[in-house]
Amino acid sequence: MASDNAAGAHPDIVQALVRANSDHALAYGQDVYTEQARRLFDDLFGRTVRTEFVYGGTGANVLALACMLKPADSVVCTEMAHIAVDEAGAPERILGAKLQTRPSLDGKLKPQDILEVVHMRGNIHHAQPAVVSITQATELGTLYSAKEVRALCDVAHHHGLLVHMDGARLANAAAALGSTPQALRSFTIDAGVDVLSFGGTKAGIVFGEAVVFFNTALADRVENIRKQITQLHSKMRFISAQYIELLQNDLFFKLGGQANAMALALYEKTKHHKSLGLLTPPSVNSLFPTIQPQAAKALQDWAFFWDWDALNHKYRWMTAWDITNKDIDMFAEAVSQALKI
Amino acid sequence: MASDNAAGAHPDIVQALVRANSDHALAYGQDVYTEQARRLFDDLFGRTVRTEFVYGGTGANVLALACMLKPADSVVCTEMAHIAVDEAGAPERILGAKLQTRPSLDGKLKPQDILEVVHMRGNIHHAQPAVVSITQATELGTLYSAKEVRALCDVAHHHGLLVHMDGARLANAAAALGSTPQALRSFTIDAGVDVLSFGGTKAGIVFGEAVVFFNTALADRVENIRKQITQLHSKMRFISAQYIELLQNDLFFKLGGQANAMALALYEKTKHHKSLGLLTPPSVNSLFPTIQPQAAKALQDWAFFWDWDALNHKYRWMTAWDITNKDIDMFAEAVSQALKI
Amino acid sequence: MASDNAAGAHPDIVQALVRANSDHALAYGQDVYTEQARRLFDDLFGRTVRTEFVYGGTGANVLALACMLKPADSVVCTEMAHIAVDEAGAPERILGAKLQTRPSLDGKLKPQDILEVVHMRGNIHHAQPAVVSITQATELGTLYSAKEVRALCDVAHHHGLLVHMDGARLANAAAALGSTPQALRSFTIDAGVDVLSFGGTKAGIVFGEAVVFFNTALADRVENIRKQITQLHSKMRFISAQYIELLQNDLFFKLGGQANAMALALYEKTKHHKSLGLLTPPSVNSLFPTIQPQAAKALQDWAFFWDWDALNHKYRWMTAWDITNKDIDMFAEAVSQALKI
Amino acid sequence: MASDNAAGAHPDIVQALVRANSDHALAYGQDVYTEQARRLFDDLFGRTVRTEFVYGGTGANVLALACMLKPADSVVCTEMAHIAVDEAGAPERILGAKLQTRPSLDGKLKPQDILEVVHMRGNIHHAQPAVVSITQATELGTLYSAKEVRALCDVAHHHGLLVHMDGARLANAAAALGSTPQALRSFTIDAGVDVLSFGGTKAGIVFGEAVVFFNTALADRVENIRKQITQLHSKMRFISAQYIELLQNDLFFKLGGQANAMALALYEKTKHHKSLGLLTPPSVNSLFPTIQPQAAKALQDWAFFWDWDALNHKYRWMTAWDITNKDIDMFAEAVSQALKI
Repeated sequence: MASDNAAGAHPDIVQALVRANSDHALAYGQDVYTEQARRLFDDLFGRTVRTEFVYGGTGANVLALACMLKPADSVVCTEMAHIAVDEAGAPERILGAKLQTRPSLDGKLKPQDILEVVHMRGNIHHAQPAVVSITQATELGTLYSAKEVRALCDVAHHHGLLVHMDGARLANAAAALGSTPQALRSFTIDAGVDVLSFGGTKAGIVFGEAVVFFNTALADRVENIRKQITQLHSKMRFISAQYIELLQNDLFFKLGGQANAMALALYEKTKHHKSLGLLTPPSVNSLFPTIQPQAAKALQDWAFFWDWDALNHKYRWMTAWDITNKDIDMFAEAVSQALKI
Repeated sequence: MASDNAAGAHPDIVQALVRANSDHALAYGQDVYTEQARRLFDDLFGRTVRTEFVYGGTGANVLALACMLKPADSVVCTEMAHIAVDEAGAPERILGAKLQTRPSLDGKLKPQDILEVVHMRGNIHHAQPAVVSITQATELGTLYSAKEVRALCDVAHHHGLLVHMDGARLANAAAALGSTPQALRSFTIDAGVDVLSFGGTKAGIVFGEAVVFFNTALADRVENIRKQITQLHSKMRFISAQYIELLQNDLFFKLGGQANAMALALYEKTKHHKSLGLLTPPSVNSLFPTIQPQAAKALQDWAFFWDWDALNHKYRWMTAWDITNKDIDMFAEAVSQALKI
Repeated sequence: MASDNAAGAHPDIVQALVRANSDHALAYGQDVYTEQARRLFDDLFGRTVRTEFVYGGTGANVLALACMLKPADSVVCTEMAHIAVDEAGAPERILGAKLQTRPSLDGKLKPQDILEVVHMRGNIHHAQPAVVSITQATELGTLYSAKEVRALCDVAHHHGLLVHMDGARLANAAAALGSTPQALRSFTIDAGVDVLSFGGTKAGIVFGEAVVFFNTALADRVENIRKQITQLHSKMRFISAQYIELLQNDLFFKLGGQANAMALALYEKTKHHKSLGLLTPPSVNSLFPTIQPQAAKALQDWAFFWDWDALNHKYRWMTAWDITNKDIDMFAEAVSQALKI
Repeated sequence: MASDNAAGAHPDIVQALVRANSDHALAYGQDVYTEQARRLFDDLFGRTVRTEFVYGGTGANVLALACMLKPADSVVCTEMAHIAVDEAGAPERILGAKLQTRPSLDGKLKPQDILEVVHMRGNIHHAQPAVVSITQATELGTLYSAKEVRALCDVAHHHGLLVHMDGARLANAAAALGSTPQALRSFTIDAGVDVLSFGGTKAGIVFGEAVVFFNTALADRVENIRKQITQLHSKMRFISAQYIELLQNDLFFKLGGQANAMALALYEKTKHHKSLGLLTPPSVNSLFPTIQPQAAKALQDWAFFWDWDALNHKYRWMTAWDITNKDIDMFAEAVSQALKI
């Protein structure tokens, strides 16, 4: 339950990677695998988009933002946004840009947050809010509805800001919100998002993330910038081949759905422990129980998971695509044992 | 009442600058004026410190911080800190570092703020809190007592963080807290501050700010870094000569005190307008009245001042060293007129 | 003879600064002095240009370049360009951009230099040459003719590159090439230069340099970027007032001319010392004599000057606007004495 | 013959990656695979070193350099160094540091190059030369002998500079210089190199490079910096598992040797075409023939390879670990055909 990063990769995806190792291919993305993967992204989103692959999630985010920002601009996001908290200051160092963070109780940014910073635009003393970055699903395991994303995009665009979506856990969000390409489009391309960090690693891939430009004009310099700030994978076909597999046969939706289902199962099996404070079923693949230190330690020793808010004894259980009902049964049993201590 | 930046320079300081223009002098700070100015800083703080001059306030802050930060470090400050709000993202771009902002009602950082971020140290996913930056007097016109600064320094140092003080309005703080070198030392060098941005421009200088290293080990590379990130003034003597004047005959304290006195006079002359909400006398040289839009506009047209919190009709009146009682009388009269509208 | 940075400021300019200290003025350049100074720049260049003031020469260069560069771009310049050698790596750190340096025997970039790097454009593995930066007068005391500048601009523009001119010693160049606004225009705005760093400090100012955008579209974000990367002088009128004085009554041309004349006088008085290797009269205000170590040291002890190429015993004598014939006589006499050692 | 980046990955390495996909493992390098891979690096170099994995070659170089540089430092390298030419300006943007390039006819830096820049140390106007970066094998396919590396390290260390080796093609160098751990040590750890970018991708890996700190004190902040500037791979075991395979059974040396052998075979089979100008056998895995445009195009259409110096009709043929004698025969035959055109 440590993280969806602790899972391995789906066997079909690994086999796709192995198959891609058959012969020489032009380096740096000039290969047939990359061409096919891009077409599959076009199909997924229902029109021609611009898709570029990078190594990891932080890379996807900084590349997307680098294409959206001008000097002296800032990014508006929640104070618990992954870019603000969990990327070791990469956005500030790589982009040289300020993150204008906003408090949020549920992990979601609100149109009001944008309205409260737009007055900075035009004032040379302030970094200029230029991009709104939202995370779907959020770092707190909540979801923006398509309508909510659209409302944010409308306000942002009205005031001249662009919208970036950090979709490190997009598979879980997509599975939760309809599990079809149409559902996925409803809260991304159709809602007005300009650039999407499309997460593959947490969804079951060995390595490699995608940046999808719905606003293709922003991709003008993306290849130069990718080479400069995120390292360009020479043997690109190995990333592309995995995405070809992921985007076929609904695997992307299935893997996200499986992780979600397991979090729900874990919720069902542990919600009767009132001390955990698990009041509502999870939207996606994470639960945030409250556990007293001694019990928490016993449980972590058995199967590691991260603390979330140490001062308040909050922890994070996170399920991955490869968790099974049997795993959940065992873990729920261990929880029961630990709580007896 | 627009800003202490709108004032000119004190005539004695301008004359000192003129006198320094008598002959050739070695460039880049290798001159006798700079040597003398440094000695005066040593005298002011009671022991040998390391003083370097830069052009402006943002330069002083980024130079100080650049000497204190290592890669992947962050700076802890309030969310209204000048470095966070009013330097157009210079710290993020020039330093490549995150500002870890904390909410504050009175403009002051609290020891608890440090305690709530120190858990990030040692976790590679987070930028590492390494420097605490406080502003004295604060952006809200409040003051840290010597005891409060010491408490912050103690907590910071205990957890391995350094302390920077942004003293853009240090003259006002020093005047308010005792108006002697001893008083100044009590909340800076004696309280444990490591590096101080010593403000001269708002105190009555033409141009030039000082960075004073109490922790002189941090100044190891300061000359190289100054040249690289803040531009090095070739004709340094023109800055140094002004500081020689400012630090002699208590001029620094007197100018800060005069600005403070005028803010207090303005408070006394306007506090009876209950709608302004001026409940307590100012600590230094600023008042934050509430004024309805029509009245505010009429008053601003007559004598410009900045809004502070537009949504809540809050404005900032700021007095400078060159404001006289007559100016205050006229302005208070204008306020009365405007409020009648 | 150390540097034109070792000179003071012209008395008329200092007096203009003193006069500007008469009252309050809006800060940050919203003042009447700045407005007037800008109009004088328009007059000087014969049409509406965009002029912004910064503190120092490195600031002027990085601001100009920041407005001209996009991510992953590079700047083409000679290997002895001030930006490449004497700014402590500021361009690389502040701009995050590569300087694509080219060897040059005479300090001048050639059209061929541009042609030899343009093949990099379009190749994502290379930083993209996007700006040509030339220095006028050059670091070696040579001059580009108006025709040479035009040829560079033509080649640059033909291949999609912009042209920046570092005019830290523009006054000397302008004086040498005609000493009229028309002459100045011929090798700047009329030749196709896009952005000019207009030097005032070496020409006789206390502090402050100007960035002049002939290609005004490039100035779209200049105010935000200036605030972010070069510090914005709050009491801007003190810079502007000096420029008003400098640009009136041909003072700019006169001061540049005086420095040039004194270098020529020094050349005439020392060229008979064959060991110095002063074969041709100086174009502007510097001479590069060869002096054996013992003699050089004796002379430097008497009146400091910099070595230029220590391995080859080359030194730099540089005259400033305030050098007189009497100074030259004394120095030439000292040279004669030193060479007898 | 396009590039060793165009090759796939060695089947044994791919199978190692597949095997690592068996179960959950702690993320971010806290796994048993990474532990084992590190031990194998210790064995390879004969003592405890510090090894960290990154995604790609540019990442390895910027991470190594970031750990070696302080603010206002510069890196000394040849003008054709990969970091200077082929990383799209990543070092300048990510590190904010100047690359002090030196001309070189054979791709190798000389002790004299260091001596000619050390005078900059201590002069605040110049970026401070602090790291020497050499590439082994060089971008021109030449090799530093162990003695040459030692001479560079001695001069560098004597003057207070550190030494970085970019070993993107270290396997080819190691194979050419003895093909044993002892031989590898002789020109790396034993010669005084401080930090090594250890290349795996060109040697036959799917993805992932290693940074090896022989000077382990420099690795103090490496994990924080890696997370910040190069993206940290969450599923690190997939990189580590490949290195475990690469470092066992001499595979690293064998793959490097096979690529070298094929370049030599190609040389033997084409050297009789005098127009190609292939005068000496290749040191490692590249040849730089001269081919007239028409013939070059015909050959490239048949099997793509890169031009090297277009103006002089120079091209680069580069062999990889997976090239066979049959491939060479076919290519040599195609060369003969093309040259008849």
